[in-house]
Amino acid sequence: MTELRRDPVIGQWVNVHVEDSLGPDHYEKEDQTPKHEATCQFCSGREHLTPPEVDAIRANDSAPNTPDWQVRVVPNKFPVLKIEGNIDEAKEGMFNFSNGVGAHEVLIETPAHNKNLADFTEGEVRDVIRLYQNRLRDLTRDRRFKYIIIFKNYGELAGTSVEHAHSQIIALPMIPKYVQEKIDGAKAYYDQHKRCVFCDMASQEREEKKRIFCENKDFIAFCPFVSRYAFEYWIMPRQHDSKFVEMNDKKRIALADILRETLSRLKNCLSDPSYNYYLHVAPVNTGKKEEFHWHIEIVPKLTRVTGFELGTGFYVVRTSPEAAAGYLRSVQCSLAV
Amino acid sequence: MTELRRDPVIGQWVNVHVEDSLGPDHYEKEDQTPKHEATCQFCSGREHLTPPEVDAIRANDSAPNTPDWQVRVVPNKFPVLKIEGNIDEAKEGMFNFSNGVGAHEVLIETPAHNKNLADFTEGEVRDVIRLYQNRLRDLTRDRRFKYIIIFKNYGELAGTSVEHAHSQIIALPMIPKYVQEKIDGAKAYYDQHKRCVFCDMASQEREEKKRIFCENKDFIAFCPFVSRYAFEYWIMPRQHDSKFVEMNDKKRIALADILRETLSRLKNCLSDPSYNYYLHVAPVNTGKKEEFHWHIEIVPKLTRVTGFELGTGFYVVRTSPEAAAGYLRSVQCSLAV
Repeated sequence: MTELRRDPVIGQWVNVHVEDSLGPDHYEKEDQTPKHEATCQFCSGREHLTPPEVDAIRANDSAPNTPDWQVRVVPNKFPVLKIEGNIDEAKEGMFNFSNGVGAHEVLIETPAHNKNLADFTEGEVRDVIRLYQNRLRDLTRDRRFKYIIIFKNYGELAGTSVEHAHSQIIALPMIPKYVQEKIDGAKAYYDQHKRCVFCDMASQEREEKKRIFCENKDFIAFCPFVSRYAFEYWIMPRQHDSKFVEMNDKKRIALADILRETLSRLKNCLSDPSYNYYLHVAPVNTGKKEEFHWHIEIVPKLTRVTGFELGTGFYVVRTSPEAAAGYLRSVQCSLAV
Repeated sequence: MTELRRDPVIGQWVNVHVEDSLGPDHYEKEDQTPKHEATCQFCSGREHLTPPEVDAIRANDSAPNTPDWQVRVVPNKFPVLKIEGNIDEAKEGMFNFSNGVGAHEVLIETPAHNKNLADFTEGEVRDVIRLYQNRLRDLTRDRRFKYIIIFKNYGELAGTSVEHAHSQIIALPMIPKYVQEKIDGAKAYYDQHKRCVFCDMASQEREEKKRIFCENKDFIAFCPFVSRYAFEYWIMPRQHDSKFVEMNDKKRIALADILRETLSRLKNCLSDPSYNYYLHVAPVNTGKKEEFHWHIEIVPKLTRVTGFELGTGFYVVRTSPEAAAGYLRSVQCSLAV
């Protein structure tokens, strides 16, 4: 038996296999062994091969673009958007377009080639988060940008072309569709209920305990009721929080803890699958009140998108979020110290 | 240099590489050699292995579920939605859900295991289209269904699990999000311009001749200005047409011609890539005027979706539609007779 579920924020439908949910063993296994250490441009000692760094966390007052860094941000050598120029909107008949202006940066998460986020220490993950905050703060100063998205592609199926652990940051001159839909959905929910839809979601998940698999003082991790992908999960502040960049060190520790614990559980549960994650924060420089209960969505790459999903935006989920949370809860968690 | 383009119907943004577009050789090659003929349940002579057929085009008055068919429709053995039962909407706290009621059928396009749509004769493709029309007509009679989507997954990267040429038909108890967005976008365009957005698109494409690569008396095939994927193309009636099911034999021939010609060009251009296609028609049984300029979207699977696309709904397209149309126009077309 399957269940049709409607997303309370963006109105998307999914079809969830609630009775015959597939277990982790059903999904194909991947080999994530690193292969390209000898030529990797992100490795410590090869700083000259990347564009000059824009930010870093460094030990011992070491100079930029030399070794002795822990996390390092550089412009992407092959940016999808270029930082120079004006937006210059134009028309071609019925079509609107503009120049591809924006920022595209790479955040190298560790100097070591063979280490992945799930195996970082708490302090190492915290440094990554600190630089996420720095880059958001800094890129917000460029008034051309309306949205900044931080995301990570881990593994070949997640579309990564460089195996050395890294995240990416793209600043866009407009608010992208999926984010706008979430903002509009949250606003409609607020107008009706006078409450934040994500706060309500967090409350209900904490009460029901069916889809939560990890929790600490500040954050919850849960497989959302309307998951679009098997084993998809979200990390969300328990209390309303629209200021990711203003997170203090105590909260950063809590976020680092839950991020690495959940990634470790995901890795152990599904034999180190490819995954994507992205951070949804409020837009910037819109001239309006920029309010959004920020959260991170983590999407393992276990199945292929078919013509049905492409043609409808309707997802078939063969492992229910309740079953997925059960597997992620009961799997062993091995954290680096 | 890249160009940011905004979809005139659904407002989605894409980032198109207009100056350094990648050519067909850049994309990975796949091996589509069929491997499972010995056990294939869709092959002629194994009709007893599928659920009993619901429709077929048969020669010589042959009996249902025996050989001597050309195209055959059977219920999917592993349906994502079940045909029996009521929708029974319910709530769990803030979440809405209902039973997974719907229809899920498989249309076996040929009795031969080793033959793919791109290599069909015009008559064979026409038979497939005729059964598409039959199934749409028949499933519309079930008043529980609000939308019927016909789609095809070709090749492993497109998510197919059965290599024998087939399409799928899913009838849904609601209008899915992507379709609703198109309908809303088309309505908004009509309210503003008093013209159909797809008619305007067809006119502009025919005038500019930059993105059209195939055309006949009734249809055009073009890579849309706002392609989300490299080498994506659409087949659309030249004149306004909201009645796919009422298409007569003359028009069916024209559609069969352009479908197989474009699939043959795609195959020759990109070494037989995996692809998905889906047919966008008007919703059914909504109690309103059901109006939509129907079209088919064909999406080759050449790149992986990353965290950026997942998190934003903003697509990066490394082959511009203008370049893609150029390649598809100039490649050799080898049609079966």
